Amino acid sequence: MPKRLGAEARNEALVTLTGWRLVEGREAITKRFIFRDFNEAFGWMTRVALLAEKMDHHPEWSNVYKTVEVTLATHDAGGLTELDVKLARAMDTLAG
Amino acid sequence: MPKRLGAEARNEALVTLTGWRLVEGREAITKRFIFRDFNEAFGWMTRVALLAEKMDHHPEWSNVYKTVEVTLATHDAGGLTELDVKLARAMDTLAG
Repeated sequence: MPKRLGAEARNEALVTLTGWRLVEGREAITKRFIFRDFNEAFGWMTRVALLAEKMDHHPEWSNVYKTVEVTLATHDAGGLTELDVKLARAMDTLAG
Repeated sequence: MPKRLGAEARNEALVTLTGWRLVEGREAITKRFIFRDFNEAFGWMTRVALLAEKMDHHPEWSNVYKTVEVTLATHDAGGLTELDVKLARAMDTLAG
């Protein structure tokens, strides 16, 4: 089970992530991804889903046509862990 | 472009749909689907996505692990149309 990041490690991780911010009132990070159309948005979600399933670490996300809002946290750890940082980074990479 | 359903047609349609309800303060219908796990939830979303793309009519939806919350409305018509009823019915069928 991954360990919850301390404040310093969390801030260091956030600096290395582009466009992610802390959720207000909750230890989680969030980002809005905007694609060209539904095909691209859902195609990306599918690639992320395969990875998330492999990691056994899943996003909270919503999709409206070409927009996907993602929130990441590690429920079992009660906050943010390396898993969230890793998944966030992979999502950015897959979004190109 | 599909025509917005009148109040009577809307209520008639709702009677034939299982588990769907009107969204408060908005002309849209919503339903929460709960699956066995993420694999089943996202697998279902993928089948719905292929159909939605073919219909050129897309859901608003959010997913947290095995739960998918769906909202349907036809933006261009400013409310509910036959497209929403058709997509809702197909979602129910695909969810088995």
